[in-house]
Amino acid sequence: MAYELYYWPTIQGRGEFVRLILEDAGADYVDVIRDAEAEGGGIEALRAFIEESGHFAPPILVDGETTVSQTPLIMDYLGAKHGITPEDEDARRDALRLSMLLADFLIEAHDVHHPLAKEFYYEDQRDEALRRAPNFRDLRIPKFYSYLENTITANDGHLADGGLSHADFALFQTVEGMRYAFPKASARLESDYPGIVTLHAEIMARPYIKAYTASGRRIPFNERGIFRHYPELDG
Amino acid sequence: MAYELYYWPTIQGRGEFVRLILEDAGADYVDVIRDAEAEGGGIEALRAFIEESGHFAPPILVDGETTVSQTPLIMDYLGAKHGITPEDEDARRDALRLSMLLADFLIEAHDVHHPLAKEFYYEDQRDEALRRAPNFRDLRIPKFYSYLENTITANDGHLADGGLSHADFALFQTVEGMRYAFPKASARLESDYPGIVTLHAEIMARPYIKAYTASGRRIPFNERGIFRHYPELDG
Repeated sequence: MAYELYYWPTIQGRGEFVRLILEDAGADYVDVIRDAEAEGGGIEALRAFIEESGHFAPPILVDGETTVSQTPLIMDYLGAKHGITPEDEDARRDALRLSMLLADFLIEAHDVHHPLAKEFYYEDQRDEALRRAPNFRDLRIPKFYSYLENTITANDGHLADGGLSHADFALFQTVEGMRYAFPKASARLESDYPGIVTLHAEIMARPYIKAYTASGRRIPFNERGIFRHYPELDG
Repeated sequence: MAYELYYWPTIQGRGEFVRLILEDAGADYVDVIRDAEAEGGGIEALRAFIEESGHFAPPILVDGETTVSQTPLIMDYLGAKHGITPEDEDARRDALRLSMLLADFLIEAHDVHHPLAKEFYYEDQRDEALRRAPNFRDLRIPKFYSYLENTITANDGHLADGGLSHADFALFQTVEGMRYAFPKASARLESDYPGIVTLHAEIMARPYIKAYTASGRRIPFNERGIFRHYPELDG
């Protein structure tokens, strides 16, 4: 039976972390809400599904009788079925911890353009975003990136103990988003983090990921998503 | 061998979620950084330990050969050893998901007083905090609380499927913090959420929790922590 993914249909967002795992595994899945309304897609169907599922927010993955939410937990769950969640209990916890860390970073990457509330328009918190952005660029990105770089170095090229894991896919998507949202800051900073750049390239070179990112199926980054390119925030 | 907890020594913060689990279990633990410097405590020892541990941020728990960070993962880990992490795989994931949800809420409860950057003083982002606070009080708290209330109702009085779990302790600490930081908003809202109030009271009545919260060992809430009481943000 195909997996069912429920997520906002017009952005990469957190759903993209799940899509990448599914695509890399060559898994059979339906991105339900992107279907036509007549086939069960659309925003109203998503709202109804969230309500009925008993989960708080998308992405939500349905696998037969099992329903999972919280992006890192979905990655851990799928990774266990498709060979990128370590079997050893300590290593599994380590991979989950790192995907959780990247989920924390994602919140900061979002809140830099929405420091007051996600319910307000960007234009109504642009001045506050302009105050927050230098701190994000100059302190927060280097804090996370240098930690990730050191971790990759300590683990022979991957984030978690024991080789390739879903956390590496979370890193890949983070770098993708940061290059879109902060092209200048990314270009300036990345030379300090060769391990991150190499690991990103390794994931990008995987056949199914290469095919997916080149296909028309991947939703382009845009200014409704989590990673947004507002040049004034890029310094 | 005693557990070792590494966390900031003068605030409840995320460390308190771990302390509650340890206290309720009657576990033998050392709150290392709160010890005197001569005994390995103090901020400099914490910074050195974070660096050497390979973890990103405290709280960090050491249990013999195992080191765990990310608060919900520590709770899942300790809960498995002390009977408040469900054994069934789906139920265990459900409890972890809920502790992760409460960790997400904690970020919002912090960022309401620090919307621009944790590195800036509150006084330097007070105007922005005043803009963020009504959104937090009027939309975000009800969104989370009504979800939690519905979940408790659906699960016969506890958050996760299958009875008492570490997620209920996360809820307890969230309510404690919200009552401190937003006493007026909490008093106004709580009557709409009897399941939350009852579950909080159930945890508070547990003998070891009752003894702990009445003891001098619990660090009082203060304006250096995550939950801060600034009356102007409470409406």
